[in-house]
Amino acid sequence: MARPLGPVRLKKTNPLTLLLGAVLCIFIIYFLLGPSAPDFSPSRKAAAASHPLSPPTSPFRKQSTSSGVKPKPPPVTHYNLNNVTITANPVENRENVLVLTPMARFYQEYWDNLLKLTYPHELITLGFILPKNKEGNAATTELQKQIAKTQKHGPEKDRFKSIIILRQDFDPPLPSQEESERHKMQNQKARRAAMSKARNSLLFTTLGPATSWVLWLDADIIETPPTLIQDLAKHDKPLVAPNCYQRYYNAEKKAMDERPYDFNNWQDSPTALELAGKMGPDDILLEGYADMATYRALMAYMYEEGADDHLEVPLDGVGGTALLVKADVHRDGAMFPAFPFYHLIETEGFAKMAKRLGWQATGLPNYKVYHFNE
Amino acid sequence: MARPLGPVRLKKTNPLTLLLGAVLCIFIIYFLLGPSAPDFSPSRKAAAASHPLSPPTSPFRKQSTSSGVKPKPPPVTHYNLNNVTITANPVENRENVLVLTPMARFYQEYWDNLLKLTYPHELITLGFILPKNKEGNAATTELQKQIAKTQKHGPEKDRFKSIIILRQDFDPPLPSQEESERHKMQNQKARRAAMSKARNSLLFTTLGPATSWVLWLDADIIETPPTLIQDLAKHDKPLVAPNCYQRYYNAEKKAMDERPYDFNNWQDSPTALELAGKMGPDDILLEGYADMATYRALMAYMYEEGADDHLEVPLDGVGGTALLVKADVHRDGAMFPAFPFYHLIETEGFAKMAKRLGWQATGLPNYKVYHFNE
Repeated sequence: MARPLGPVRLKKTNPLTLLLGAVLCIFIIYFLLGPSAPDFSPSRKAAAASHPLSPPTSPFRKQSTSSGVKPKPPPVTHYNLNNVTITANPVENRENVLVLTPMARFYQEYWDNLLKLTYPHELITLGFILPKNKEGNAATTELQKQIAKTQKHGPEKDRFKSIIILRQDFDPPLPSQEESERHKMQNQKARRAAMSKARNSLLFTTLGPATSWVLWLDADIIETPPTLIQDLAKHDKPLVAPNCYQRYYNAEKKAMDERPYDFNNWQDSPTALELAGKMGPDDILLEGYADMATYRALMAYMYEEGADDHLEVPLDGVGGTALLVKADVHRDGAMFPAFPFYHLIETEGFAKMAKRLGWQATGLPNYKVYHFNE
Repeated sequence: MARPLGPVRLKKTNPLTLLLGAVLCIFIIYFLLGPSAPDFSPSRKAAAASHPLSPPTSPFRKQSTSSGVKPKPPPVTHYNLNNVTITANPVENRENVLVLTPMARFYQEYWDNLLKLTYPHELITLGFILPKNKEGNAATTELQKQIAKTQKHGPEKDRFKSIIILRQDFDPPLPSQEESERHKMQNQKARRAAMSKARNSLLFTTLGPATSWVLWLDADIIETPPTLIQDLAKHDKPLVAPNCYQRYYNAEKKAMDERPYDFNNWQDSPTALELAGKMGPDDILLEGYADMATYRALMAYMYEEGADDHLEVPLDGVGGTALLVKADVHRDGAMFPAFPFYHLIETEGFAKMAKRLGWQATGLPNYKVYHFNE
């Protein structure tokens, strides 16, 4: 590993720039699971919201439609959501899952994988945020095409409860999403600050009172076990992260192979803490850069072939490629800091913030999901 | 002023305690502004959501009801919320305001004052969070009684778009709300950490994609100008706080008088920064305590009789008694830290966090609102 260099300083953001750039452009696509949909099974009907404008997370319907005559609802409606649970058996307990995906490019494989998830789709709300630029427009078009296909024409079991699409202007604009550009350390700082705000916008506007779990799933995660949500929830942890790998063609072996991809899932090291201790208040510590070796223990390297898939390790930093979070962690205030927080930003800062709120992150080194390979 | 003593240390919270205590119990009361309500004016109908289950902040209704036959909505509905603005003319631009109130006791004067607000009520969503204890139960009963009265039987113009009530278990339980107990410095630390979580739960579960403004209004604010929302929004500031006073009987003058109440609106001082600089990472600095004199400039004391009501001063810390926030400030991630954040918690930490995100707080020393006097 290379020698550690000095810390990286985050450019001070001009407040005016931020004021100008905070225009949220939003589309909401609600999927109808209501009495007007003719092809729904009774069990689905019972769980369904009664209107396309239903809050994304409200599965409750008090209206009786058995008489055939639509009763006039009373002027004040009470909903007792005492039965919103967050448990290791989310399917059994009919727990609502909010899947949140910041998206710059649309990958068909991402959508196909999402469709394969066996968690009951009528309990899943999807939330997307896309940048308002050419790339984002193209991705939105592709995404909407697939949504229409699934929600309108697809088999009933594939359809999700509701889908929300947010569009956001980033100012300054997000750096290019080209793989080579995206990972440059200088670009990372601005990119991850913008990503933090995108994640927060998405989170703050979609989390509802009946949400039990939030699954953060990046748009370039193209392969997961179909039981991803159940498998992660089974651990009953406040935050749980699988290990994110990437399939590639190994020219040496002349065969397909795989390699670790997400290096933001880590355990702290004395070196990293020492580096942070010497930093100024606006400096941040990034992971996975040779010129800033932290000697943290990376979950990416903890995978052990043939070992227990469900082995747990404690984590101090998490990535956002795939991450299941109990909704109460967010409700307590845990968000993605766009500013240096204990010298960490975005998902890594989120893990630290969750910890400050009393919630410990857990990693599953042997449970893999796969990232797109460009 | 008294001599400054050592900093206050926040008790380390046991993560397990937090895990156990995070049970959210939620009631949602949606007010119907729909086609089934017979007594609504056409302008209100146009602005109204179409169903009691509409998201609290969605004023959009695409359904045509002119034909008399309720059309079947399409399986996928798109909403383009490009026109969600946050401007100095919120009434003209039909901007949605979310009024958020943590409530331990119900004061009739709070509700009466709320009803007197001249901001169009059909653009106002109310969100409450109350503790799940005896006091909270009593307050919820009182609150629901008033809601039913207003939303069901009151004049059309008084009715709010929707109302959401959350109930939350606090563990450890909130300290007593007795005035004498509430302000003790030792109690303040635990109380304000719990309050932070309550505010965050309320915020994260009620903020919607169409919310333009969030008005934080404490349950014991019993008197404001009826034009409060318009007056504060006119300043077009990310965060703007009026000056919170209290009316009382001045025995010396033998007449009613008033005195400053909320000391959390302040400008930083060299003394406070010096105190903070010497603190450990878990220490917090509280305002308004004789044994920890900060020599900050308190907005409470900046009031000048006869001066311009709309005089602005920059603030470094804010209180939550009354505070208008642009929704984008929250969407960027600004929340109420329940942990020491730059040695600040709750609303004061919120101002600092907003600042780290590029948003500056503003105070109006000559614009007054009034706190209940027990």
